[in-house]
Amino acid sequence: MGADVAADLFPANRHAEFEPEVVLLRSEPLTGFDSAEARATLRQSELLVTGWGCPPVSAAVLNEAPRLKAIVHTGGSVKHHLSAAVWDRGIVVTSAAAANALPVAEYTLATILLANKRVIPSSRLLGRTQRFDRATDLDHTIGNFGKRIGLVGASAIGRRVIELLGPFDLEVVVADPYLSSRDAALLGVTRLDLEELISTSDVVSLHAPALPETHHLIDGARIRMMKRGATLINTARGSLVDQRALTDRLVTGEIYAVLDVTDPWIPAPGDRLYTLPNVLLTPHIAGSLGTELRRLAAAALDEAKRIADGRTPRHPVVIDDLTRIA
Amino acid sequence: MGADVAADLFPANRHAEFEPEVVLLRSEPLTGFDSAEARATLRQSELLVTGWGCPPVSAAVLNEAPRLKAIVHTGGSVKHHLSAAVWDRGIVVTSAAAANALPVAEYTLATILLANKRVIPSSRLLGRTQRFDRATDLDHTIGNFGKRIGLVGASAIGRRVIELLGPFDLEVVVADPYLSSRDAALLGVTRLDLEELISTSDVVSLHAPALPETHHLIDGARIRMMKRGATLINTARGSLVDQRALTDRLVTGEIYAVLDVTDPWIPAPGDRLYTLPNVLLTPHIAGSLGTELRRLAAAALDEAKRIADGRTPRHPVVIDDLTRIA
Ligand SMILES: NC(=O)c1ccc[n+]([C@@H]2O[C@H](COP(=O)([O-])OP(=O)(O)OC[C@H]3O[C@@H](n4cnc5c(N)ncnc54)[C@H](O)[C@@H]3O)[C@@H](O)[C@H]2O)c1
Ligand SMILES: NC(=O)c1ccc[n+]([C@@H]2O[C@H](COP(=O)([O-])OP(=O)(O)OC[C@H]3O[C@@H](n4cnc5c(N)ncnc54)[C@H](O)[C@@H]3O)[C@@H](O)[C@H]2O)c1
Repeated sequence: MGADVAADLFPANRHAEFEPEVVLLRSEPLTGFDSAEARATLRQSELLVTGWGCPPVSAAVLNEAPRLKAIVHTGGSVKHHLSAAVWDRGIVVTSAAAANALPVAEYTLATILLANKRVIPSSRLLGRTQRFDRATDLDHTIGNFGKRIGLVGASAIGRRVIELLGPFDLEVVVADPYLSSRDAALLGVTRLDLEELISTSDVVSLHAPALPETHHLIDGARIRMMKRGATLINTARGSLVDQRALTDRLVTGEIYAVLDVTDPWIPAPGDRLYTLPNVLLTPHIAGSLGTELRRLAAAALDEAKRIADGRTPRHPVVIDDLTRIA
Repeated sequence: MGADVAADLFPANRHAEFEPEVVLLRSEPLTGFDSAEARATLRQSELLVTGWGCPPVSAAVLNEAPRLKAIVHTGGSVKHHLSAAVWDRGIVVTSAAAANALPVAEYTLATILLANKRVIPSSRLLGRTQRFDRATDLDHTIGNFGKRIGLVGASAIGRRVIELLGPFDLEVVVADPYLSSRDAALLGVTRLDLEELISTSDVVSLHAPALPETHHLIDGARIRMMKRGATLINTARGSLVDQRALTDRLVTGEIYAVLDVTDPWIPAPGDRLYTLPNVLLTPHIAGSLGTELRRLAAAALDEAKRIADGRTPRHPVVIDDLTRIA
């Protein structure tokens, strides 16, 4: 992983926490696999702890690592650095997607509660005009009572959002082609097809992965199906949304958006998303940051120790899932 | 109550919901007690349903209401319209403070989660500069992990916030001179004195009522005790905070604030609170609005029916409590 990532996740004074089950071969991270030193380390390694900035673990890299039995990833998705060759070798892979889901679900919960109440637009109006009249500046449809929240993707994040929405007077519906009706019942949610979800929800929140099939999943037609006054929340990936069509509808003021991800990840200079009063735009900060990295480190430490002990890892990544997960 | 309030809470098509336990004497609300018509209604009334805009129920009004046994208030506080004379007459009083606590607690939860993550300041920086660098624009101390949330007042709202904070990796501490250690243990929180709470919490959220003793409870010295990077959330009342001292510290950028209430309720024109990047200022919208009014109406209907049936009301207001509640 990157040296900065390693310093955040595993500062030197916490290296002892790997012991006794796991022995660190180096006190500094490998940031690449090309040096003679890296190859020497690889030859002895039974387990790799990977993180953001990890270069691809190619077939060539695997050839240098005859003893490798497991890769414990401290981030959410393993797609950027792991290829099928890893699973072909029978190497166990785990990810910290479950731990990384928590802050994204928290951001989603918070922005749902504020969106239904129009907190950000009201604050902006107050700031701009230095006055506010509740009778005329708010409408009777706002409020966190009796609203429908539509989640696209019963993902790790989506499931945590479902859990967190438990205490509120809000209905939760989910669209996910891989969600069985039995699982929906266990989650306590109603399964809807995507267009029914989009056209009936007060908040539509995206939790599907970037896949060829999800490119512009929320296209112009679907954006125009959204109810007046509804909010689109995207913490997933910018590629899921036809951003130009979204912006066109946002400009009318008919809908609202909360966007932690866009395409490109920060909109181009001058993009209308920067200035629309009905958009909360944030720079991809819903995931783990700051103290939340400690949770990822703890999850990875736990997995590494479980594997070293011969126990089953908590969050193995199975190759067959890669076509439908993040 | 005000005619607009009545139309929101009890639209004509829902009047039948009072029956059979409760008979409405009028289809339009009384908005005052002075007219001959109002006095005629008062003479027959056994129960009053009151709401925002209700004029004082004075001793003179009570004299016109010989059969009155109960007052069911659809708002949070009864202090604006009820005086000791009501309790002296043995009239049962209930309020919807418990139902009104829910949206305020939701606003508080949402803004705590966003504050720890610097979501609003990051969004503003991105909007202003159209760029963002996570390495330099965010610091390592942010995140909803291992933070201390300090609640001032184990009020109805404060208790709901405690409940809602259950699923998160956050520690909750409370300062309330009336909270017993036994109750704190039942709530699963640590009781601290106010100054220890203020000087050690990452978020300080106010849930105490406006009382003579709580005027400027958060004075200049206490504001200066707040940790660097901490956030003050005020959904209680503007009078609790020395706003000039707060603004002075906010100007330094050392702390953050989320203010749903100020003194006056909307700051004076040109006030610095309107433009500080580290302040989220909202126009007193945390309480029940829009669809949330239905919850207040349902709570009041329930109380009216319980009282009509001779059952115990759920949320009676006891006169001895008035010196320490909202
Ligand atoms: N904003 C951030 O900082 C941040 C952080 C982490 C993850 N993410 C993103 O959040 C999203 C969810 O991540 P996760 O780890 O919870 O996902 P996950 O891998 O746990 O689950 C993905 C889910 O999407 C479902 N899915 C697949 N195709 C779908 C379709 N066409 N329609 C609806 N659902 C479909 C799958 O059934 C699966 O349940 C991903 O896009 C991920 O990249 C963003
Ligand atoms: N922003 C809004 O829209 C909105 C809506 C409803 C209520 N409020 C305000 O929220 C606050 C809480 O309301 P509530 O109905 O939950 O209150 P409540 O009446 O249920 O409880 C008040 C609590 O404050 C405690 N208290 C009294 N003096 C204190 C002190 N000096 N220090 C700390 N605690 C003290 C009492 O012990 C009591 O537990 C009030 O100020 C109320 O006016 C605001």
